[in-house]
Amino acid sequence: MTAQAFIDQVKFNEQGLVTAIAQDAGTNEVLMVAYMNADTLRQTLETGTMTYWSRSRRKVWVKGESSGHTQEVREVRIDCDGDALVFKVVQHGGAACHTGHRSCFYRRWDDGAFAVDEEPVFDPKQVYG
Amino acid sequence: MTAQAFIDQVKFNEQGLVTAIAQDAGTNEVLMVAYMNADTLRQTLETGTMTYWSRSRRKVWVKGESSGHTQEVREVRIDCDGDALVFKVVQHGGAACHTGHRSCFYRRWDDGAFAVDEEPVFDPKQVYG
Repeated sequence: MTAQAFIDQVKFNEQGLVTAIAQDAGTNEVLMVAYMNADTLRQTLETGTMTYWSRSRRKVWVKGESSGHTQEVREVRIDCDGDALVFKVVQHGGAACHTGHRSCFYRRWDDGAFAVDEEPVFDPKQVYG
Repeated sequence: MTAQAFIDQVKFNEQGLVTAIAQDAGTNEVLMVAYMNADTLRQTLETGTMTYWSRSRRKVWVKGESSGHTQEVREVRIDCDGDALVFKVVQHGGAACHTGHRSCFYRRWDDGAFAVDEEPVFDPKQVYG
């Protein structure tokens, strides 16, 4: 019921999707960017667990469903024109990225090449098999 | 020349655009989300001033060109699949949003309604006329 009031403010794109940014609730580090449709946004608001729409797999994607690295929602924000959302989350398992890095944005542009500041938190082979 | 090495890693969408997140370099607050094409990404990397592609106006958008509230790039990051970028910026003029709020994400979901935590930094009527 209340989730509908939120969804009504969202401007979904032609594919029925809205940009969803997951940010670490403690450090404000951007962990990942993905997409939600109205149903997975509703599910996220109602369950408090980040639930995206996977564009590549064309299915509901409860983040962490296979790795156990779920994202617990602490705060939700919408931008001025309603086409992007920010979720402050607690990242369980220490890493949001399928590569094992804490953030999907682990590559920093350093004057002509990409630098990687941090080692992966986990070994993807061990988590995804 | 070096900007091309960056652009080569970007996966632009069907419209030739990539998602660009501007984050406050000091606090990591997400200020806004917009889009860049290859040309405006190159311009951003070469000038150090955030330059988007305006989807609504269909033109190059040097952020702050009319308001003076430019964004000075301090750090650039790319995500694992290359379809989103994070720019840590210094926001001149104190506000990224055309509403006068510091961040475009000034509306926080508070149990069934949106709350606004912060007053606008400037009066849009005075800035945009």
